[in-house]
Amino acid sequence: MLCCLRAAVAAISAGCGAGCVRGRFSMAKSKFEYVRDFETDDTCLPNCWIVVRLDGRNFHRFAEQHEFKKPNDDRALHLMTKCAQTVMQELEDIAIAYGQSDEYSFVFKRKSKWFKRRASKFMTHVVSQFASSYVFYWKDYFKDQQLLYPPGFDGRIVLYPSNQNLKDYLSWRQADCHINNLYNTVFWMLVQRSGLTPVQAQDRLQGTLAGDKNEILFSEFNINYNNEPLMYRKGTVLIWQKVNEVMTKKIKLPKESEEKEVEVTRTRTKVVPLHCDIIGEQFWEEYPEILAEDS
Amino acid sequence: MLCCLRAAVAAISAGCGAGCVRGRFSMAKSKFEYVRDFETDDTCLPNCWIVVRLDGRNFHRFAEQHEFKKPNDDRALHLMTKCAQTVMQELEDIAIAYGQSDEYSFVFKRKSKWFKRRASKFMTHVVSQFASSYVFYWKDYFKDQQLLYPPGFDGRIVLYPSNQNLKDYLSWRQADCHINNLYNTVFWMLVQRSGLTPVQAQDRLQGTLAGDKNEILFSEFNINYNNEPLMYRKGTVLIWQKVNEVMTKKIKLPKESEEKEVEVTRTRTKVVPLHCDIIGEQFWEEYPEILAEDS
Amino acid sequence: MLCCLRAAVAAISAGCGAGCVRGRFSMAKSKFEYVRDFETDDTCLPNCWIVVRLDGRNFHRFAEQHEFKKPNDDRALHLMTKCAQTVMQELEDIAIAYGQSDEYSFVFKRKSKWFKRRASKFMTHVVSQFASSYVFYWKDYFKDQQLLYPPGFDGRIVLYPSNQNLKDYLSWRQADCHINNLYNTVFWMLVQRSGLTPVQAQDRLQGTLAGDKNEILFSEFNINYNNEPLMYRKGTVLIWQKVNEVMTKKIKLPKESEEKEVEVTRTRTKVVPLHCDIIGEQFWEEYPEILAEDS
Amino acid sequence: MLCCLRAAVAAISAGCGAGCVRGRFSMAKSKFEYVRDFETDDTCLPNCWIVVRLDGRNFHRFAEQHEFKKPNDDRALHLMTKCAQTVMQELEDIAIAYGQSDEYSFVFKRKSKWFKRRASKFMTHVVSQFASSYVFYWKDYFKDQQLLYPPGFDGRIVLYPSNQNLKDYLSWRQADCHINNLYNTVFWMLVQRSGLTPVQAQDRLQGTLAGDKNEILFSEFNINYNNEPLMYRKGTVLIWQKVNEVMTKKIKLPKESEEKEVEVTRTRTKVVPLHCDIIGEQFWEEYPEILAEDS
Repeated sequence: MLCCLRAAVAAISAGCGAGCVRGRFSMAKSKFEYVRDFETDDTCLPNCWIVVRLDGRNFHRFAEQHEFKKPNDDRALHLMTKCAQTVMQELEDIAIAYGQSDEYSFVFKRKSKWFKRRASKFMTHVVSQFASSYVFYWKDYFKDQQLLYPPGFDGRIVLYPSNQNLKDYLSWRQADCHINNLYNTVFWMLVQRSGLTPVQAQDRLQGTLAGDKNEILFSEFNINYNNEPLMYRKGTVLIWQKVNEVMTKKIKLPKESEEKEVEVTRTRTKVVPLHCDIIGEQFWEEYPEILAEDS
Repeated sequence: MLCCLRAAVAAISAGCGAGCVRGRFSMAKSKFEYVRDFETDDTCLPNCWIVVRLDGRNFHRFAEQHEFKKPNDDRALHLMTKCAQTVMQELEDIAIAYGQSDEYSFVFKRKSKWFKRRASKFMTHVVSQFASSYVFYWKDYFKDQQLLYPPGFDGRIVLYPSNQNLKDYLSWRQADCHINNLYNTVFWMLVQRSGLTPVQAQDRLQGTLAGDKNEILFSEFNINYNNEPLMYRKGTVLIWQKVNEVMTKKIKLPKESEEKEVEVTRTRTKVVPLHCDIIGEQFWEEYPEILAEDS
Repeated sequence: MLCCLRAAVAAISAGCGAGCVRGRFSMAKSKFEYVRDFETDDTCLPNCWIVVRLDGRNFHRFAEQHEFKKPNDDRALHLMTKCAQTVMQELEDIAIAYGQSDEYSFVFKRKSKWFKRRASKFMTHVVSQFASSYVFYWKDYFKDQQLLYPPGFDGRIVLYPSNQNLKDYLSWRQADCHINNLYNTVFWMLVQRSGLTPVQAQDRLQGTLAGDKNEILFSEFNINYNNEPLMYRKGTVLIWQKVNEVMTKKIKLPKESEEKEVEVTRTRTKVVPLHCDIIGEQFWEEYPEILAEDS
Repeated sequence: MLCCLRAAVAAISAGCGAGCVRGRFSMAKSKFEYVRDFETDDTCLPNCWIVVRLDGRNFHRFAEQHEFKKPNDDRALHLMTKCAQTVMQELEDIAIAYGQSDEYSFVFKRKSKWFKRRASKFMTHVVSQFASSYVFYWKDYFKDQQLLYPPGFDGRIVLYPSNQNLKDYLSWRQADCHINNLYNTVFWMLVQRSGLTPVQAQDRLQGTLAGDKNEILFSEFNINYNNEPLMYRKGTVLIWQKVNEVMTKKIKLPKESEEKEVEVTRTRTKVVPLHCDIIGEQFWEEYPEILAEDS
């Protein structure tokens, strides 16, 4: 809310003498205030991981209208990640995020007390910050490609009681990324290179297993799927990392008359994107602090 | 979600022979899919009005950094309304919206079945569409004033079982608008014209009633509060209205060789802003369709 | 809770000097008390009718083991109603109740603030009072038929925003009563009088309409269904009614030496059972106070 | 529900020719059935311990009217435990229960899928089974002391995501038991033996620490609190235990003409009451199966 002095309002509502035209508003307001009791408490269960996942609304159409490259558009993926980084920096207590295609999942620490763990606060802050960032940073990634209209996103919130549940959630999203990307990679090869119509490509892939698709890619298009970019195959993991930043600072020593440039190393915590496997245990062993009890 | 062919995935997950490296992903995915059961049903009670109210996040600071005019900035208010109109047009079943300052309330029809009445869908679609629109349309209202960073909004959802409850909710917001605007109008007069510091102005207004504030405005600044712009005093009501649009169309009659211009009148339904009282009964009598049973 | 002096506990928890063996308990308790934060708020939306419906658990088996008469056992039906009356008298704000077979619905006033409208309180008080009453009053209705084991009941809570929704809920239960009772009446006639096995009776009734069943009753068993007892066909409605009670009181007049008996009429509010139609409007017109705004 | 043949109803509702008086009920029913959509989903989050705690309603008054011995009445405590055992045996998936005074907590396994984990089912089955058992078994414990009216109980449900949270919950209840019992023991000594009024006793104990109370018991009443019965000091823990039952069975061997009695040992799982500390780790180390993953 915008009003800087709302505290003062309480005093105002106190009363109003005869002939006071305007007093009826504060009296009216208190008469109406019972409607606040209709708000329900949506506090998240304590000691659970809180996941907010957002999805682009009608992004199939959005992608076509903005000429996204198929099956993966680097500009779009990097913009998504930029928005997710903004969300992690602006909001509190996000331990890790994972994104692929037009979706991003944000994991809040299980001990988080941000906004008293109110579900609506978590959801709406995530999606609104993401959505405004998407438009704000659009031109940094899409350059001359104009944004035609403001996009929408939907969000949901899910709680996970155990670390294993959380890891399984993230694994589920990464397995989904893999399955879709393998499918899409073959599909668009068939369409773009072999000239199949979308329906023909779909028919061709109907009932094929992962091995079959790898085989098509290799034998027909000379593509080893394992050499496709990690970002496409694994999606993007965002974590906090300490980084050393070397800065040049001008200082003036007491006994000297002139300023002097010195190099100063500062340790900062930054949101860093990774494109690695998070299904196996290795990732979690390498970054134990993500799931740490006091995290 | 972006993937156009996800239906096909079901078939893929079916199985995988020996030596199939990649099949483990679809098998893995189905192994992880139990995590979907942790999503909870947040369906809104049927036959209740669904209100989503959004608020700017840290807009006090945002207003200062973007040099909003005090106590009311027309650019900011019009941009808010433009965003709210976009929300009403892009989303479904919004019967009426009301905005003031940095907040907007959207009222979904009590019979709405949009997204099966899932609370998270209503909240996140509203705030994300609003937030992306805010950045998208910013330059149309703020011209050379650059947007410095992407703003955030929070949202909440409240249900109202009866028409009276809903009208009282909207009255509550409009009474709030009035009380704040009267206070802010005097406060900023004291600061801008009388040269008081914010603390001095606050002290001066401490304990004053509405009548006192009107008196200060009139005697010290020659301002009749009732003549202040309606948009400031009443906020903005958005409703759907039928409007006639006259268009010029070129048609070619069968027996004539040349095209001819004719005027065609089309009836369209548009979102229209009003700045009127919604506390009294008059508004609801004038627009009975807003609360109508089949609305 | 049983402890009459729990308020005193606060003082006890304050602290404990060295060597105090027992102090660790109060300290321990405060250390554990964080677990209270895991309780969630289950407040019912204001201004809605609150319905709690209970059902006998495994009452098919219970009825057989206790030799309930088929298709309707007066003892069982009257015991159910006795329990429901007890619930209405012991709990607060129940405006009307409706029962049939082994189920009973209790309707709490839409303005009720009993236990802050917490759903768990409403449900558990209803079913526990009902269940203990069932055992307590059993012998008054079943005489020599021993109760073999303590029965269970389940309960659920549903909110209805409008009077029409509530009336439709009660109509739904009464229509269910009718359909089941008509079916059961014919079914048991076929079994008890015509000597069909249950499976044969079921086959015979497969696909029959209400009219067919009436016809079977009339032509084969000379029964006019409309003459069956109202309690079976309509179920039982419990409402509050003012009744005049004439009591004999002994009083002694000042100037007389002996006591004298006088009749005194007192008006009391009692729970009264009815067996009438509640689907049509007539019932609601006759008892407008049930749905009255201040009810 | 009682109706054994409800499945058949679907067919009945199909339709009805002209002149069919009774068909209107099945049609009416389907017209009203929309009211089922107002039921909300109250599924408990998976992988959490589900605790249902019940409390006697107005048991202070109930205890007085039924002349409970102060500060602890063995009959009442044993009856509570009998009811809790019945609940554990009749309902599914209860891993452990803990009781003290007029309250009992039931812990359902974190993997339980009983009634799809619907909160209302858990709560109402627990309290109704407990309440009916209370009346049913009353005479086994209270003999000639008549039960004057059917008692009520309230219940609530709480979820605990981790084993530690659950242990802390149970510790909280046991610490509460200790604090109350120590207080009550001294309080009733002062009243019953020293002749203080309740108010005097309360004043005397105001501000005392546990050590002070122990001292009063020892110096004034020659009572070592640690020698008080464990059931009073620790409450009652109910767990499942394998027990060997030796039964005598008559069997007839093929080649012999007469029956012969043989002893057969059967292993059964029974609900067993313990009165031990559950705050320390020892209990959980001794019974690891209670918290076991597959429990």
